[in-house]
Amino acid sequence: MRTVAWDYTHQQVKMIDQRLLPGEFREVSYTSHEQVAEAIQQMVVRGAPAIGASAAFGMALAANESKTDDIAALKRELIKAAEVLQAARPTAVNLVWAVTRMLRVVENFEEGEVDVLRSLMLEEAQLIADQDVQINKQMATHGANLMAENEIVIHHCNTGALATVDWGTALGVIRMAHEQGKNPHVLVDETRPRLQGARLTAWELEQYQVSYEIITDNAAGFFLSSGKVNRVLVGADRVAANGDVANKIGTYMLALAARDNQVPFFAVVPTSTIDLSLQEGKQIPIEERDEIEVLGIQFLGKRASPKTASARNPAFDVTPHRLISGIITENGVVYPPYETNLREAVMADKN
Amino acid sequence: MRTVAWDYTHQQVKMIDQRLLPGEFREVSYTSHEQVAEAIQQMVVRGAPAIGASAAFGMALAANESKTDDIAALKRELIKAAEVLQAARPTAVNLVWAVTRMLRVVENFEEGEVDVLRSLMLEEAQLIADQDVQINKQMATHGANLMAENEIVIHHCNTGALATVDWGTALGVIRMAHEQGKNPHVLVDETRPRLQGARLTAWELEQYQVSYEIITDNAAGFFLSSGKVNRVLVGADRVAANGDVANKIGTYMLALAARDNQVPFFAVVPTSTIDLSLQEGKQIPIEERDEIEVLGIQFLGKRASPKTASARNPAFDVTPHRLISGIITENGVVYPPYETNLREAVMADKN
Repeated sequence: MRTVAWDYTHQQVKMIDQRLLPGEFREVSYTSHEQVAEAIQQMVVRGAPAIGASAAFGMALAANESKTDDIAALKRELIKAAEVLQAARPTAVNLVWAVTRMLRVVENFEEGEVDVLRSLMLEEAQLIADQDVQINKQMATHGANLMAENEIVIHHCNTGALATVDWGTALGVIRMAHEQGKNPHVLVDETRPRLQGARLTAWELEQYQVSYEIITDNAAGFFLSSGKVNRVLVGADRVAANGDVANKIGTYMLALAARDNQVPFFAVVPTSTIDLSLQEGKQIPIEERDEIEVLGIQFLGKRASPKTASARNPAFDVTPHRLISGIITENGVVYPPYETNLREAVMADKN
Repeated sequence: MRTVAWDYTHQQVKMIDQRLLPGEFREVSYTSHEQVAEAIQQMVVRGAPAIGASAAFGMALAANESKTDDIAALKRELIKAAEVLQAARPTAVNLVWAVTRMLRVVENFEEGEVDVLRSLMLEEAQLIADQDVQINKQMATHGANLMAENEIVIHHCNTGALATVDWGTALGVIRMAHEQGKNPHVLVDETRPRLQGARLTAWELEQYQVSYEIITDNAAGFFLSSGKVNRVLVGADRVAANGDVANKIGTYMLALAARDNQVPFFAVVPTSTIDLSLQEGKQIPIEERDEIEVLGIQFLGKRASPKTASARNPAFDVTPHRLISGIITENGVVYPPYETNLREAVMADKN
């Protein structure tokens, strides 16, 4: 099943509740766009492409929710729903990208029955979801072609089927290399604070029967300097026009350690994650989440920090393009100079 | 009270059980050197200087435990005890350093009553402990002199009173700056896997009323690139002759991020942590600990990794000397070239 999908029987959005994995696999369903926005905010669903598809289905829900039979009124409601969904999380540009694409359907719909617009909205959301899977497989193929046999790969956060509609970005590359018989071994960064690596990536790799070991994020530098790691693969939440990559907190330090040891560092991103409107990474808004994500873990069965402690919790950081060996997109692998080559990769979609 | 001390009433070694903090403050007592070795291995006590003092008291216990009144037999037992204690953990050279110093008392004791050697052993262990506190205060003064008012400092692991007999190394510098009214603010790396930052450093900073916030280790790069961090301070478990520093896992990536943002990075180490017998860091033995330290944490009240997952758990890494702005010792701040200047700092003790 897909991470996020439309339930045609009940006209609602289904998602895997990723907060419960790996202990429990549970599906949840939502009937309103507000619920979808909250699910995105609460990280029931996460991962830039999955957030994008979820928001698209959220827009389809908004069209279905509406009781109006006045097309202008429906359009107004959809514009409001777009605002609610876009405000759910700030960093992943796929959210804005998907909602903008849904709004284009609204704008282009000159006149007609409200039910026709409702079906067009659902069709577009379904198309976004289907294209995501297809794009991921293209990226996976481009990425796996770079890989030799028996590579040891460090991977950060979760970028698999759970971070997308299906298949995945960086983890999709690893999965493809595995299916090609290249026998990759993954050192899985646990990825504090929310442990998407230990919880979700490890869980996915078990399904695919890919060989892996979990490491603390701190240990990546140790393994990179051991000379035994062949490659680092990460996803992205937003890529600026100059190739700077905003991704899960810790990516920047991982990239520094890769560079210090001449280990290739690749980001795997659909072109929908590339934001040509931002010149450089420091313009990307970085979400700071609740401190409970830092303070709430337990060690040896006990709370790990003093009860009166406070914490800072930036959810993403920016890796400067100078540390990135290449950016793998559905339109091929982009190498420096990113300024021109990223633009070409994005425009390839529009041609 | 001290982290580790001799109980003169009961002739045993007392320690704070650091595995229980911050939730519970409990003292434990040991009557045999094997128990002390196990306490070191199990990390009831940790931190290079505290391990050294614990091993010294362990040797004093070994002398007391012995029932023999034959001096040659006692010496043989002490040499065996030294082997047991030295094998407890491999990376912190203070363990070897302290046991070697205790063995020198054994060697220098030509003839006499076994009880005289027993008291000499305890005297030497007590001296090691007392000197540790004094040395820490000297380092704290040298380090605090480098600091301006209102500095924001990133600190890794725990290097405070709990990592030493009392006062601390890197955290001692921060405490001294605080006592001098310089108002430092500490971003406390939580320090996976064992969370010595979130558990122990945060707990100590609460006692000293130093302003702090806990961050994930992953977030250090974000804050360093924000331009708001003035300094990084860490301890060390062993320093090679060329200035390479073995310290808690994650230190290397932290040093890379500091260097990438021109933020000064200092290691605070007593000369007993400097191992001139090793030319460079890659000769330092790195302990790998049980995977349960990685796999055993809980997030949202649930185990964070699949039940069948395995993990790698190197406990230390090596930070190359090229990333280190200076090494603060009790004999002053050592700057590059470390090859000659570290040797001078160590030799200053012997003069």
